[in-house]
Amino acid sequence: MRLEELIKLRRDFHKYAEAGWCEFRTTSVIAEFLSNLGYDVKVGREILDESSVMGRDESVIPKEIERATKQGADPKWIERMAGYTGALAVLNTGKKGPTVALRFDIDAVEVNEAKDDKHRPYREGFSSVNPGAMHACGHDGHAAIGLGVARLLAEKKDSLRGKIKLIFQPAEEGVRGGKAIAEKGILDDCDFLVALHLGLGLSTGNMAGGVAGLLCTTKFDVFYKGKASHAGAAPNEGRNALLGAANAAINLHGIAPHRNGTSRVNVGVLHAGEGRNVVPPHAMFKVETRGETEEIASYMYQRAMKIVESCALMYELEWTVKQMGESITAKSDEDLVGLICKVAKETGEFDSIESFYNMGGSDDFSWMMKRVQEKGGKASYMVLGSDIEAGHHNEYFDFDERSLLKGVVLMSQLVEKLSRFES
Amino acid sequence: MRLEELIKLRRDFHKYAEAGWCEFRTTSVIAEFLSNLGYDVKVGREILDESSVMGRDESVIPKEIERATKQGADPKWIERMAGYTGALAVLNTGKKGPTVALRFDIDAVEVNEAKDDKHRPYREGFSSVNPGAMHACGHDGHAAIGLGVARLLAEKKDSLRGKIKLIFQPAEEGVRGGKAIAEKGILDDCDFLVALHLGLGLSTGNMAGGVAGLLCTTKFDVFYKGKASHAGAAPNEGRNALLGAANAAINLHGIAPHRNGTSRVNVGVLHAGEGRNVVPPHAMFKVETRGETEEIASYMYQRAMKIVESCALMYELEWTVKQMGESITAKSDEDLVGLICKVAKETGEFDSIESFYNMGGSDDFSWMMKRVQEKGGKASYMVLGSDIEAGHHNEYFDFDERSLLKGVVLMSQLVEKLSRFES
Amino acid sequence: MRLEELIKLRRDFHKYAEAGWCEFRTTSVIAEFLSNLGYDVKVGREILDESSVMGRDESVIPKEIERATKQGADPKWIERMAGYTGALAVLNTGKKGPTVALRFDIDAVEVNEAKDDKHRPYREGFSSVNPGAMHACGHDGHAAIGLGVARLLAEKKDSLRGKIKLIFQPAEEGVRGGKAIAEKGILDDCDFLVALHLGLGLSTGNMAGGVAGLLCTTKFDVFYKGKASHAGAAPNEGRNALLGAANAAINLHGIAPHRNGTSRVNVGVLHAGEGRNVVPPHAMFKVETRGETEEIASYMYQRAMKIVESCALMYELEWTVKQMGESITAKSDEDLVGLICKVAKETGEFDSIESFYNMGGSDDFSWMMKRVQEKGGKASYMVLGSDIEAGHHNEYFDFDERSLLKGVVLMSQLVEKLSRFES
Amino acid sequence: MRLEELIKLRRDFHKYAEAGWCEFRTTSVIAEFLSNLGYDVKVGREILDESSVMGRDESVIPKEIERATKQGADPKWIERMAGYTGALAVLNTGKKGPTVALRFDIDAVEVNEAKDDKHRPYREGFSSVNPGAMHACGHDGHAAIGLGVARLLAEKKDSLRGKIKLIFQPAEEGVRGGKAIAEKGILDDCDFLVALHLGLGLSTGNMAGGVAGLLCTTKFDVFYKGKASHAGAAPNEGRNALLGAANAAINLHGIAPHRNGTSRVNVGVLHAGEGRNVVPPHAMFKVETRGETEEIASYMYQRAMKIVESCALMYELEWTVKQMGESITAKSDEDLVGLICKVAKETGEFDSIESFYNMGGSDDFSWMMKRVQEKGGKASYMVLGSDIEAGHHNEYFDFDERSLLKGVVLMSQLVEKLSRFES
Repeated sequence: MRLEELIKLRRDFHKYAEAGWCEFRTTSVIAEFLSNLGYDVKVGREILDESSVMGRDESVIPKEIERATKQGADPKWIERMAGYTGALAVLNTGKKGPTVALRFDIDAVEVNEAKDDKHRPYREGFSSVNPGAMHACGHDGHAAIGLGVARLLAEKKDSLRGKIKLIFQPAEEGVRGGKAIAEKGILDDCDFLVALHLGLGLSTGNMAGGVAGLLCTTKFDVFYKGKASHAGAAPNEGRNALLGAANAAINLHGIAPHRNGTSRVNVGVLHAGEGRNVVPPHAMFKVETRGETEEIASYMYQRAMKIVESCALMYELEWTVKQMGESITAKSDEDLVGLICKVAKETGEFDSIESFYNMGGSDDFSWMMKRVQEKGGKASYMVLGSDIEAGHHNEYFDFDERSLLKGVVLMSQLVEKLSRFES
Repeated sequence: MRLEELIKLRRDFHKYAEAGWCEFRTTSVIAEFLSNLGYDVKVGREILDESSVMGRDESVIPKEIERATKQGADPKWIERMAGYTGALAVLNTGKKGPTVALRFDIDAVEVNEAKDDKHRPYREGFSSVNPGAMHACGHDGHAAIGLGVARLLAEKKDSLRGKIKLIFQPAEEGVRGGKAIAEKGILDDCDFLVALHLGLGLSTGNMAGGVAGLLCTTKFDVFYKGKASHAGAAPNEGRNALLGAANAAINLHGIAPHRNGTSRVNVGVLHAGEGRNVVPPHAMFKVETRGETEEIASYMYQRAMKIVESCALMYELEWTVKQMGESITAKSDEDLVGLICKVAKETGEFDSIESFYNMGGSDDFSWMMKRVQEKGGKASYMVLGSDIEAGHHNEYFDFDERSLLKGVVLMSQLVEKLSRFES
Repeated sequence: MRLEELIKLRRDFHKYAEAGWCEFRTTSVIAEFLSNLGYDVKVGREILDESSVMGRDESVIPKEIERATKQGADPKWIERMAGYTGALAVLNTGKKGPTVALRFDIDAVEVNEAKDDKHRPYREGFSSVNPGAMHACGHDGHAAIGLGVARLLAEKKDSLRGKIKLIFQPAEEGVRGGKAIAEKGILDDCDFLVALHLGLGLSTGNMAGGVAGLLCTTKFDVFYKGKASHAGAAPNEGRNALLGAANAAINLHGIAPHRNGTSRVNVGVLHAGEGRNVVPPHAMFKVETRGETEEIASYMYQRAMKIVESCALMYELEWTVKQMGESITAKSDEDLVGLICKVAKETGEFDSIESFYNMGGSDDFSWMMKRVQEKGGKASYMVLGSDIEAGHHNEYFDFDERSLLKGVVLMSQLVEKLSRFES
Repeated sequence: MRLEELIKLRRDFHKYAEAGWCEFRTTSVIAEFLSNLGYDVKVGREILDESSVMGRDESVIPKEIERATKQGADPKWIERMAGYTGALAVLNTGKKGPTVALRFDIDAVEVNEAKDDKHRPYREGFSSVNPGAMHACGHDGHAAIGLGVARLLAEKKDSLRGKIKLIFQPAEEGVRGGKAIAEKGILDDCDFLVALHLGLGLSTGNMAGGVAGLLCTTKFDVFYKGKASHAGAAPNEGRNALLGAANAAINLHGIAPHRNGTSRVNVGVLHAGEGRNVVPPHAMFKVETRGETEEIASYMYQRAMKIVESCALMYELEWTVKQMGESITAKSDEDLVGLICKVAKETGEFDSIESFYNMGGSDDFSWMMKRVQEKGGKASYMVLGSDIEAGHHNEYFDFDERSLLKGVVLMSQLVEKLSRFES
């Protein structure tokens, strides 16, 4: 696997960025690639527990499938997906040995990519062609690394033992897809489960074998319904949903921090009103709360609900809340982290290796870690350093593509080591 | 003209509701109708001063023309419109006499119509098929009355004198189109100019010959630009445009009233943010300020600008304001009002007739009134009572269709009287 | 009565400004003056219905009496007041004739007077010596005019008929005292009741015989109780009363105006918190809502209560509301206004005289007007023009003292005329 | 030293609670006690660098001295204090050896103590008699421990070496006094410097030898000046300082957290307005910002200033900010912490001993630690576990008095050990 190939794959995913639950072209490209390498591939509905799916808007799916097909998704794979995205590839060595699983998340962020010559993806012609979707978090890199690892492992199949499972997860942004994969049971035979994330503040050549502080998080949408009226002639007859939502947004951001650790809240999207001269009868806003522990996460969510309820009352609005995503905290297993760091050192790719990195974000890989850990397996979430041009989720996000090869080397050598592991 | 015909016209306009500057089908139907009656008809660009056009989004025009054409707009008229809507129909009696102009506004409000069996337009199948556009202010009725009056006057052409001008104005909502018609000069030869508005709190069988308190108003859009960042991992690196806009909206609604009279402010629409887990980098909101006098309107606008500026500063945002519409105050001429009330009485259609009604709203007909009054003509804005089901601009708005015929009778008899007026 | 004497009286009241229910020195000075003129004088508890008293803080009364005594209040009058302020002086001519009552309000506003050489009361040494109390509304002038009128009428007693009643009302600011006087029944025999107010936007030499738009108003205090905690070490354990109150204040000022007329709201005072590093456990704020009609006033009050309740809920606070004052609307009787304007003209003191002035404020004289009007008497509230240096209630407020004599002349001639009135 | 004596001392300090810079009685009691033990005592101005004093309101000092004197402060000590509080007691053993300093803070919090039978200090008659001042943070205990230690050390003088310095610091709340003591240079000869804090989440019998996360903090007061006007008659003529402050408070609490660690902000006090019916012309609010590092603290302060400035602009207010206190971060020296833990274990008083406690608060002892550490000395801030009844700064705060004796034993044995320390 040469770096050029990885870059080509990454830039293809980048250009055709697809937001969570809409990764039809991405899944098709991945499935075809893996299938050609000889993996046993399953997609979409075959690898998800539908009742655990979160934050999915069914109404956009048909249009997104149409778009993906125009952009090159293979109708054969589209049909097998049955409306759901994501892929699982299994390589059975036929030899006795552990089951080792790797997970790669593949969805884009809901951001409009910068159209600006100082932004390399735009300058070099591979910026997103899909409005409202941009690989601003590096999952294009994760997917490319996953394919690179898949090729290397396929080539080395004879030297491996046990079973290898590669999971390409949909809808990680908004922590919507991870639980559905965990609940399907496809990880229940895993002895080892590992994922990585690019960037996160570590520069190229650095890495961390595990993380400590994955934040618990809840994602929800709030809908306010008031009453329209003529803003000039009958302002008192309206019930103003926009003002209710504006107050909620401001006060949500003011929830007091918790004595016991990190918390976060964000109102990422707010839409309200219909016409300039109409008292706004509707508002909706998208919220996420986070906490370092379940206690803190629960505190944040309860305070948020109180604010949502009271701001509706203030403007005499009807309100509903729709749960859109949820993830828990998780901790990498110490002995697995130790082994990872050892392998990382052996690769010769890294100048600086640390054990536990405190990332301050959330990832629904936590559901999978928990599932595997509860069954007695070991799991870890690694950080792969990569210089970045702008923060994660920023419209100017871009990363150092040299880290792609480092990721492939690290993960493939790790799988080799683990596949021969004897407990 | 029978009531049934008026109702049919009104319901057709209602079903194919078109927001301001997008009334392509409506204009086409009107132009064809008037042309068939023998009027000399001009449309779109022929009757507007382009430099006075306000609040127009060029980017949506091609799609709207396409939609209108699918919904029955005649390509012949579409071509003549040259991208602009509205119509002027002239009836020249060939006899010496005054020029009498009537104005009818034809655009819909940006509201989603209620889909509810208790709402007659929905129940009887003529509710709007165009999302985001609804005749929630009665302009469908105004247009129908205009066509009814046109037919009656065409039939009575021989008994009339001077010249009759019927103006079907686009984009009254948001006071965006009136000034462009006034500035074109097509009213400069008018001796009399009259418009009417349905409803406004008067019930069927009531009318007012003039209004006193048209509010001055300014319409503007505000754009905030901040900086996106990962809401969990780097919240401090973002600049939150959503919170800036939320603060602005709340404080705009709190501008202190003016000692000297009525003021209004509304933030009718607010859109902010891109994704749930991204610090929102963009926000836009649509505002209108109003005042009973120019002093009050100016006070409101200046306070609004201060709030817009300071809330941008608070979240370190770049900001721009785009003017979208403006109208002035106006007062109906007393002697014309007296004559209107006399005619109204003679029609036998009205139980209660008052001279000056205080409406508490704005209408860009004020630009036309001013233009005519400055040249020595007389102008008035009448109110035609009509029972309504819900307030103007509410999604359940509907009016008593019996008032359509009353409007036709009133206006046609008024034109007859005025056309024979000798000063 | 010479102007110099009136000025001296006014400046004395100004210097010893006393807020509502604390006018012990003012009442004492007035009572002594009137008693010396031969009036039959009653004070405090003798002229008030205690159950109708509003907005009184008993805890400050003893200290205020002590202060007033130090500042010259006569212990004899203090004793008769029995803790309540205000005075009633009756002049019985012994001749058959109507009962004519005049009302003068005597309390100061809760404002700290400007200490600035550009402010005449400070420059000339008669600015308030009592912190938190300032005659910023002209009641010092009203009281001085009342004494001037009292002297003139006493001198002309022989030429008068019927009975004269002079009421010096406490606690008009905050509309707290008027109802208690009305309910005592001391006006029930009045044929005529008149009051005046200085300034209000009319300049010296102008006057108005009546007012039309006295606003209904409700005054109330809100108390929020949350929970203190260490703001650094345990922010999540507090319940922040300050933030609840801040949200309430902002949203109260944003209550939508009413289609049917003028409304007002003000949060005039807000106190919250205990120490910088403590989550604020307490907040209190003083509110007033107003409306041109009872419908509007009721709408404003109900919206206010909704906001008060919801902001408490938002920060999980306990809340209580204490009613502090209330007044109703009132309208001057047209025929009495006509007569007043006639007298005003005869005095030769006024360049411009109008009938009904729209003042846009509230006065609890409305309770007395209603009481008299319900019993068949006539009442009016006059405006006495006076140039002012700054708006009413501003710390730089001062008025043109020449208006004092005009007020005395107008009122005394009016009483003369009315006392000889035969219906 | 028996526990009963310590309790008696503590309750005396508790009852006569004195806020920062006002500890005249407390200082007098302490100085007299120490002087009687034979210490060389200095007070007030003798131990402070006046130019480093922060957050002191000179205008209240005379009244506070008068109050303290009434409550038992000795005029002799009052005179020596020369207007400033705090004491330094030196015990010179005359033998060669290190200089060991202990610091005890002595001021109360600005909280009104609960008057409630469930609150022991109230029930048992030793709750604060001074409104607005309450020992809600345990400094009464610190002072008592300090006197207990002083007595034990005086008794053991012969077995000690070097020099002992006991510092009783004023105005720790609000971090106002620590820097002034550090800058005076009285610590410049110290080899060891230690302080302790009661409670902080550790229960009785626990202790920690050092802390890691003292937060940097800035304390400041904001003053807004707008313009008063009549809230009913001329609302547009006012400039509303209350609304500016309310917006500032809400948005200050919404400053986004920093990716690199803990931050805090609190608006602890807000006072605005003068009278209910006056547009509020003045507002003041007390703010503190904190951060785990200087970077974070600086970020918080800069964001706060932006909000303060913009909210003034929004309501067209003049604004000033007054710095009231500041402290930096600090870290206990590891080897000193080790030694402390060893001593703690030897005392037999503690069930659980930890090295570094993360307290999440600020203490201006950091200035003294830095001063000593920069000169080559060692410093530590210990935590003395104590069960508490309510959180620090809460009106129901109370602690387990048994911890007083544990504190005395720990500190005196530590001094013994350190005084014989040979490097």
